[in-house]
Amino acid sequence: MALKIYGVLRSRATRTVWLARELGIPFEHVPVIQSYRLPDPRAADAPFNTASPDFLKLNPNGRVPVVVDDGLVLFESLAINLHLARKHGGELAPRDAAEDALMTQWGFWAATEVEPFSLQIQTHRPAGPKHDMARAEAAAATLARPLAALEAALRAGGGWLVGGRFTVADLNTAEILRYAQADAGLFAKYPAVGAWIAACQSRPAFKAMMAEREKEPA
Amino acid sequence: MALKIYGVLRSRATRTVWLARELGIPFEHVPVIQSYRLPDPRAADAPFNTASPDFLKLNPNGRVPVVVDDGLVLFESLAINLHLARKHGGELAPRDAAEDALMTQWGFWAATEVEPFSLQIQTHRPAGPKHDMARAEAAAATLARPLAALEAALRAGGGWLVGGRFTVADLNTAEILRYAQADAGLFAKYPAVGAWIAACQSRPAFKAMMAEREKEPA
Repeated sequence: MALKIYGVLRSRATRTVWLARELGIPFEHVPVIQSYRLPDPRAADAPFNTASPDFLKLNPNGRVPVVVDDGLVLFESLAINLHLARKHGGELAPRDAAEDALMTQWGFWAATEVEPFSLQIQTHRPAGPKHDMARAEAAAATLARPLAALEAALRAGGGWLVGGRFTVADLNTAEILRYAQADAGLFAKYPAVGAWIAACQSRPAFKAMMAEREKEPA
Repeated sequence: MALKIYGVLRSRATRTVWLARELGIPFEHVPVIQSYRLPDPRAADAPFNTASPDFLKLNPNGRVPVVVDDGLVLFESLAINLHLARKHGGELAPRDAAEDALMTQWGFWAATEVEPFSLQIQTHRPAGPKHDMARAEAAAATLARPLAALEAALRAGGGWLVGGRFTVADLNTAEILRYAQADAGLFAKYPAVGAWIAACQSRPAFKAMMAEREKEPA
């Protein structure tokens, strides 16, 4: 049974579609719409969305992405990606228990230290849906410490987070930090971070995912 | 080299100390003080705290817990716990790749869907440091969906999150939901959640950790 990935690409499903393309595994993409506000009249019109009863059977949290992988239903994008990398092996996957621990560590770090603030930057910068520069700048200020920690880790690690090579840890973290790129000057003080995210985003699998994303309705 | 766990028990280090006691592994506990505000005059007086240069060499994010395990320096409490469970095996650890994926999933779920709000309940309920009932109640309202999802998962899973038994997934999630117990009535509508957290907290290793915690200076 092929891997099924649920979630439009204007959601955290980008992470899993990018990874599946990196791993070269076949998958079926079901572009379920994320409905943040419930009840959402738009969502009620869509045939299959995160507020629909069929979707809530799959993930009662009402969020994408969700995958069904050989019968295993899994939510939480970063957990999905760690699982798929472990399962399919190769350069992106952990080679041993220590690498697995570190890749998991960076996932939790990105989800808790970075994502709440990178999302605020995306939301509140001028191009975002709720322009509020004071909030955007407060979020950027909060990221100063995590970005310094990331800068140090990348310098110590030869430009990558784990094992001196591009892995699922870089992919997960880069996708979470992508939201902060709405603040074009943010990485100026962190050259290793800037070089690293450019390297991540120059990968053909990332570009293919983003090209597909551009084709989706806004 | 024995496992070293850095962090006072009035921090997320509770999670790792509880787990180490469950696993029955020897460890050295270094009660590093968490300094949330920098510069913090109290922290500057302490010989070793999360703002001190020596600690920042260990974790530039300035947070506890951190462990050093056979030379591996690891931060992020939930990643540490998943790593220690995998390494030491037994009933608390994943038995296969699917269980590992689900235990990782519940960690990310708890960290992102629950923790920001359970912490607000702890902070803003009358016994907390910043009494603000409106904020405490807003946080409780946000937890309605995650708690319903948890209730459904526990009912489907025979009272536990993964594999029909107490595992590191339950331990991680229960410690994050503990903060919400400041709202005594919160679990009334979720009987499976109430029974589950009571079962988790009745374990001798939890009780021993909490007794040790009570002995620490406030």
